[in-house]
Amino acid sequence: MTTTLIAGGIVVSATGRVPADVLVDGERIVAVLAPGSVLLGSDLAASVDTVLDATGKYVIPGGIDAHTHMELPFGGTAASDTFETGTRAAAWGGTTTIIDFAVQRTGERIQDGLAEWHRKAAGTCAIDYGFHQIIGGVDQDALAAMPGLIDEGITSFKLFMAYPGVFYSDDAQILKAMQVSRDTGMLTMMHAENGPVIDVLAEQLYAEGKTDPYFHGIARAWQMEEEATHRAIMLANLTGAPLYVVHVSAKQAVEQLAWARDRGQNAFGETCPQYLYLSLEDQLGASSEQWGRFEGAKWVCSTPLRSRAEGHQDSMWQALRTNDLQMVSTDHCPFCMKDQKELGRGDFRKIPNGIGSVEHRMDLMYQGVVTGELTLERWVELTSTTPARMFGLYGQKGVIAPGADADIVIYDPNGHTSIGVHESHHMNMDHSAWEGFEIDGHVDTVLSRGRVIVDGGVYHGSAGHGRYVKRALSQYLI
Amino acid sequence: MTTTLIAGGIVVSATGRVPADVLVDGERIVAVLAPGSVLLGSDLAASVDTVLDATGKYVIPGGIDAHTHMELPFGGTAASDTFETGTRAAAWGGTTTIIDFAVQRTGERIQDGLAEWHRKAAGTCAIDYGFHQIIGGVDQDALAAMPGLIDEGITSFKLFMAYPGVFYSDDAQILKAMQVSRDTGMLTMMHAENGPVIDVLAEQLYAEGKTDPYFHGIARAWQMEEEATHRAIMLANLTGAPLYVVHVSAKQAVEQLAWARDRGQNAFGETCPQYLYLSLEDQLGASSEQWGRFEGAKWVCSTPLRSRAEGHQDSMWQALRTNDLQMVSTDHCPFCMKDQKELGRGDFRKIPNGIGSVEHRMDLMYQGVVTGELTLERWVELTSTTPARMFGLYGQKGVIAPGADADIVIYDPNGHTSIGVHESHHMNMDHSAWEGFEIDGHVDTVLSRGRVIVDGGVYHGSAGHGRYVKRALSQYLI
Amino acid sequence: MTTTLIAGGIVVSATGRVPADVLVDGERIVAVLAPGSVLLGSDLAASVDTVLDATGKYVIPGGIDAHTHMELPFGGTAASDTFETGTRAAAWGGTTTIIDFAVQRTGERIQDGLAEWHRKAAGTCAIDYGFHQIIGGVDQDALAAMPGLIDEGITSFKLFMAYPGVFYSDDAQILKAMQVSRDTGMLTMMHAENGPVIDVLAEQLYAEGKTDPYFHGIARAWQMEEEATHRAIMLANLTGAPLYVVHVSAKQAVEQLAWARDRGQNAFGETCPQYLYLSLEDQLGASSEQWGRFEGAKWVCSTPLRSRAEGHQDSMWQALRTNDLQMVSTDHCPFCMKDQKELGRGDFRKIPNGIGSVEHRMDLMYQGVVTGELTLERWVELTSTTPARMFGLYGQKGVIAPGADADIVIYDPNGHTSIGVHESHHMNMDHSAWEGFEIDGHVDTVLSRGRVIVDGGVYHGSAGHGRYVKRALSQYLI
Amino acid sequence: MTTTLIAGGIVVSATGRVPADVLVDGERIVAVLAPGSVLLGSDLAASVDTVLDATGKYVIPGGIDAHTHMELPFGGTAASDTFETGTRAAAWGGTTTIIDFAVQRTGERIQDGLAEWHRKAAGTCAIDYGFHQIIGGVDQDALAAMPGLIDEGITSFKLFMAYPGVFYSDDAQILKAMQVSRDTGMLTMMHAENGPVIDVLAEQLYAEGKTDPYFHGIARAWQMEEEATHRAIMLANLTGAPLYVVHVSAKQAVEQLAWARDRGQNAFGETCPQYLYLSLEDQLGASSEQWGRFEGAKWVCSTPLRSRAEGHQDSMWQALRTNDLQMVSTDHCPFCMKDQKELGRGDFRKIPNGIGSVEHRMDLMYQGVVTGELTLERWVELTSTTPARMFGLYGQKGVIAPGADADIVIYDPNGHTSIGVHESHHMNMDHSAWEGFEIDGHVDTVLSRGRVIVDGGVYHGSAGHGRYVKRALSQYLI
Repeated sequence: MTTTLIAGGIVVSATGRVPADVLVDGERIVAVLAPGSVLLGSDLAASVDTVLDATGKYVIPGGIDAHTHMELPFGGTAASDTFETGTRAAAWGGTTTIIDFAVQRTGERIQDGLAEWHRKAAGTCAIDYGFHQIIGGVDQDALAAMPGLIDEGITSFKLFMAYPGVFYSDDAQILKAMQVSRDTGMLTMMHAENGPVIDVLAEQLYAEGKTDPYFHGIARAWQMEEEATHRAIMLANLTGAPLYVVHVSAKQAVEQLAWARDRGQNAFGETCPQYLYLSLEDQLGASSEQWGRFEGAKWVCSTPLRSRAEGHQDSMWQALRTNDLQMVSTDHCPFCMKDQKELGRGDFRKIPNGIGSVEHRMDLMYQGVVTGELTLERWVELTSTTPARMFGLYGQKGVIAPGADADIVIYDPNGHTSIGVHESHHMNMDHSAWEGFEIDGHVDTVLSRGRVIVDGGVYHGSAGHGRYVKRALSQYLI
Repeated sequence: MTTTLIAGGIVVSATGRVPADVLVDGERIVAVLAPGSVLLGSDLAASVDTVLDATGKYVIPGGIDAHTHMELPFGGTAASDTFETGTRAAAWGGTTTIIDFAVQRTGERIQDGLAEWHRKAAGTCAIDYGFHQIIGGVDQDALAAMPGLIDEGITSFKLFMAYPGVFYSDDAQILKAMQVSRDTGMLTMMHAENGPVIDVLAEQLYAEGKTDPYFHGIARAWQMEEEATHRAIMLANLTGAPLYVVHVSAKQAVEQLAWARDRGQNAFGETCPQYLYLSLEDQLGASSEQWGRFEGAKWVCSTPLRSRAEGHQDSMWQALRTNDLQMVSTDHCPFCMKDQKELGRGDFRKIPNGIGSVEHRMDLMYQGVVTGELTLERWVELTSTTPARMFGLYGQKGVIAPGADADIVIYDPNGHTSIGVHESHHMNMDHSAWEGFEIDGHVDTVLSRGRVIVDGGVYHGSAGHGRYVKRALSQYLI
Repeated sequence: MTTTLIAGGIVVSATGRVPADVLVDGERIVAVLAPGSVLLGSDLAASVDTVLDATGKYVIPGGIDAHTHMELPFGGTAASDTFETGTRAAAWGGTTTIIDFAVQRTGERIQDGLAEWHRKAAGTCAIDYGFHQIIGGVDQDALAAMPGLIDEGITSFKLFMAYPGVFYSDDAQILKAMQVSRDTGMLTMMHAENGPVIDVLAEQLYAEGKTDPYFHGIARAWQMEEEATHRAIMLANLTGAPLYVVHVSAKQAVEQLAWARDRGQNAFGETCPQYLYLSLEDQLGASSEQWGRFEGAKWVCSTPLRSRAEGHQDSMWQALRTNDLQMVSTDHCPFCMKDQKELGRGDFRKIPNGIGSVEHRMDLMYQGVVTGELTLERWVELTSTTPARMFGLYGQKGVIAPGADADIVIYDPNGHTSIGVHESHHMNMDHSAWEGFEIDGHVDTVLSRGRVIVDGGVYHGSAGHGRYVKRALSQYLI
Repeated sequence: MTTTLIAGGIVVSATGRVPADVLVDGERIVAVLAPGSVLLGSDLAASVDTVLDATGKYVIPGGIDAHTHMELPFGGTAASDTFETGTRAAAWGGTTTIIDFAVQRTGERIQDGLAEWHRKAAGTCAIDYGFHQIIGGVDQDALAAMPGLIDEGITSFKLFMAYPGVFYSDDAQILKAMQVSRDTGMLTMMHAENGPVIDVLAEQLYAEGKTDPYFHGIARAWQMEEEATHRAIMLANLTGAPLYVVHVSAKQAVEQLAWARDRGQNAFGETCPQYLYLSLEDQLGASSEQWGRFEGAKWVCSTPLRSRAEGHQDSMWQALRTNDLQMVSTDHCPFCMKDQKELGRGDFRKIPNGIGSVEHRMDLMYQGVVTGELTLERWVELTSTTPARMFGLYGQKGVIAPGADADIVIYDPNGHTSIGVHESHHMNMDHSAWEGFEIDGHVDTVLSRGRVIVDGGVYHGSAGHGRYVKRALSQYLI
């Protein structure tokens, strides 16, 4: 097997930073060592096959993006990244594991949905991948099938309080699924928006001639995110299920999560870069020569962008600091403007929901370190260590430690990244939601299970290198 | 230098556990390695001077007790442990660093108080030690001297809202000291009880003939801990100073800290084993042949034991899980019953305040893992990693990582410890506050800076091995 | 017209008490006068037809019970009191106005349901009555019909978050109805329990063989009352509708209402005597020779009785003091044990839900004055003045003031009432939920629109005296 | 005795409004009657000495200003209104009772301070007056004297957490006084600002050359009002004393009061017109030809004006609606710019603290009705009924009811009042804090104990008409 020594860098973990070298043997990390690479008389640098010089750089566990939707059918089209294009883009950005969502819908068998997802991903991924299971139709068959998912390495499932007729579960269904969650230890993930109410609001707006992308955010009022979050918390309280709320964007939803945690509940939440950096006001003001006011469609996602005047973005940053939110994922769900987003011209309800960010998450969050919103350690914790612990990958992923997969990023704090120009990014999109964002740092080198897949601006990866990873039960519960 | 390999154990950190060997060279850890001890062809076990077999055991960073009072003059007597006896007892219990409190009082120079503490500790300690600075007299001289403490390695100071005439600072003094805290980054530690009110209540109780030890807890009502905690938080909010509240025991005080943190403030708190395990009801019922109802004096400490019926103990455990409290220290301040505690016979106000626990903290908290109150990782975080981060020792202490001091404990989850029988403990006390406590685990081996000081029930340490450690600014602030 | 002088009493209002005489001319109060009955030289006592001596007694506005269900079809049977028997019982107990609920169900026209209720009540009532409108099927017709109710004197409507398939509205329906509420000023009343979840829990309990009446309360967990209360609040927040939550029994639901009110929302709540005096523990312990453990069926109501150990009852009293709850109604919905409650033998789900209390509300709440839970003024406010204001009757009802209907109760604080023995009460029930309750006070005399209908233990009323009262919009909104 | 009939108006109470006539005989109200003034055949209008036509107008109980400081010595000068000028101005504005503060300071006897206040007020007042007692020096003598105040008709006392060296009480003193409050039922009033901290901040600002009036508000940070409010609440919680916080201006202080009340505590608060209408930003921008930037001194009061950008004013209005604040008083404490306010030129600390508003309170609050902030009923409740209940005057004052003093205002909602032009107001001030405020209503007629003292823009009152009123214990406690 090939041996590699990453020498001279600062190894950053969730709790601190130490100067250390990292020795990789084959696919695994085998040692973390005092810098200098001399151990009991043996000059490691001279003994290994490759030495990567990390002097002046951070050595961190590869990013784990726990919320992606490659090739997701949605709104009459499908997310534009395949597992191949999406995971390659992720790799470019320092993410070495994704957890995507296999889909089951009403009347379908969970096993079939999962099989389809395995089929899509197998042999195409640049990096390792796992699955959560979307359960869009909680029925007796689904409830019976759920415990079996654990052996498949799928220890978390997602329900939707939105999208009636598509993914929606009513409260009785949620209750039953959460009872399985409590009994098995599987983590209940929740899209917490009151869909039935939102759909009425959207219909009313449309009927009033309010059809621009901006009204997507008006229809999806923060009250209905707060409400659904509270409801999910109380159902979790009633059943004893551990709860993880996806893509939190409303400060009032964070308050509900904080309230639940202050009482000792296992209630967690993620936010996404778009809820930290972008706003409803941005969307209102969006315009381009090509698309006019429909330009705002590029930022149509659910939960929606929130008003900056109301302080949601500041609240998200604060919650990341105080651990009222535990993670940052992307909810990567890319759609092109052409042929996809434009399905909703004249009717915001028909715009496919989603933003593509899988390539930029590590950079965007690092910029929060630069601006003082986060510590360096918290950056690693939010993007890698907690995702690993939350979803049962710790030890194998999420940490620079012996025995772990050698998923490693060498990050240069003195580098620079201009993100978002769509000619330069690697996601399969005809635009970027992040055009114009500048990052005071750079993903220099990316290793996936010991193999250098990105280095010095050159891609060395290959489709099929990435393997499916089975996940254990959550290692983050209290 | 001597080399040691700790082989076959499970290395536990604040975020997870991995099977790994730990290589020590001299005083430092030089590598953490995949188990099996073969590295690039070299059999480490065969190369090192000593191999410690940790099979089936936990390998954890040595405990850091951030709150001790060796030889503290108090109430006309002095804490019964010297730095020599106290640190030896700590070593027996798996604690490899203490942070003690140097004392300055009104009219005294900070430099003099600190010098006296250096004199007491120098050449006597079994383990490494640092100092916080008590500032009992905030005046212009003290304010001017405070920033200079940072160069001395003292990056935190403690004020008292209790003990008028002894350590007490009024709000104006606290304000000024907190302004220094904000300007320098020093951490403000606070004894948060409204002393002036408590002293009136205590006087009234005494006047009513309520003189038993139990009334110590009645006088020190939870409302006055809650109130002072809130006041400290608001002064910190006003100034921007980071705040750390010591020995939190009232659930309402925790609520205040949680409230401050939910708003994004750097407000932290520790609790102590006595507030997790002992109660006011226990104290009311205490009685012995020798001391009669005065037996309860052994549990007179401040803040006091709280009512179990009111749920304080459950709240403390919960807060440790939710990180509304971040650490467990002992507030080790031992007094013998004979000649010391008995000064307060017939007047609870004269009982020296303090409980001795420095030897038992790691065990008592491990029992929380056994009973399901805490995870194994949280145990390490609460007792070592966070204390290191909070008080600027991380990297050197609080973590098993290359470059760190080899302060390491091998803990046996299959061992057993009967604590508290005073003939068997090593603290200089004629009784134990913990008599009868049984622990389903055992401190097998303790290394301090690479030297085995406890192993197999034998003490190998020596007075003077322990060194003074300079501390950096807090590494825990958000 | 007949003139009556109520002389020598203490007139009690929501804000205070004054010694005063009350002059009634025909159906109305025409003057409130300084006691002594001499006015500008005219001896009123000598001039009027009747003098009622109220010396040593309280003169209060007649009780308004804003929540009754006479003759309500439910669970395959119907509430056992007709408007005739129910209003006569109310009169005996000092209640001079009821507001009953007209019923519309899915597929029915509101106008038809209302007409049926008018038919039931017309010509049969002992006291005045008004109607709320239950809307059990929110559809386009119902939404269109709602504003017209205002002209009919119906300014409040009730929705159910429970009872799927019977009265249940889903969130989209609630939204639309609340939009009407906002636009018209009508008050939205809510049965706030998550019925779909409760029904699953009930089914699971039944399947486990837990069929006793007690399990009714277990299935209707407080979490699902809290949740629905929060949801209703947020829908009201979103729409701007004023909200009134009926029969609040869980302390956590009160906390939600207090939270909404602290933020300035028009969010109100009532509780009922059963949630103040009775408990789930009482129900668990209930047993009788005749009915065995099924005896507890007499206390099956929804929301259910709550656990005293959890402190719900104390919380309700407190909330009545702090105005976090604004009113006390009965939710009078009587069913006999024989042939009615016993429908649910062996299956608690089939027990008709309801308790009969319309006769006892004024007495039961007065006992709260005796025991120090409430002030005398708060008693009047909770039982008469606020109900009048909340539901648009103030001026005509709810106050002793010139121009108001002479609905007056002379209450003797030195009297005594043994309530609840079913042979002695006047409700059409074969048992009493209140057997054994003793009250240190007595309803001596009751006037309805100037006519003495109860006096000295004799009933002078008649069916048909009571008239339908049209109600204005709420006079309690902020 | 003279008889007067106030005919044709709308009598407004705290709970509602009814068309009614009010009959006054001598100093008292003897009847409230149905309009039309015919009673049992007697035409009242023809029988009385005087008929006041109130057609189209509101008839309300005279205003009670429970917080004034006539002739208060402060900062080397004294409030510029005597009891004579101040009560005359009050009468002009529809206030018929004031409660002023008798003063005791450290080393003085309460009895002496009270005697001095009686001496100042006796024979000079246009309207009735009562006293609270300021206790500026809580010592054994003062504690012993307190219960005796109840017989003197003084049932409330005020402590200061600000103004060290003048009025300040430390926490131990507050505790002892609150214990008397609990034991006697006297109401504890509190000036809740952390004075010792504020004084340091003020000194620091001054030392930095920040000497303008604006910095008065910067020094008196909201955190220190919030903190003191919380501290007062907890001391009240500990002792069981009822608490009333004066001149609340910070929204965070309101939150503390709401929190206390949600838990069932007797914790109340007043705000003042200045905290509803004026802001720190106004003060920053204040400037005049005569005074330049020192113009802002006219708005120097304590608590200070708060930032509008932070939302304090909106919060005060909301709290008045939700009853989180119960009353509006003026804290009338007038100082002229010339010779008084100007003592603080170049040093904001020396500006006498106070604003004169006793004449304008009823109008300023009525404007809140006009703008939709308050209901008409709430206006009466906030300005008269609750002050009467809170401070033990109900029955005699605060209500239009038989037996009550005929303190009555006829208020014209179609009138107009231009307030604040100092040439036109009646307070003894050389300026007005309210210059330019326009009110859409007008105080037409004012009766004090049956005597018309203001009518049609003419003053008919006289010094000495006003009498001292003894107050009972609070009638507002729960």
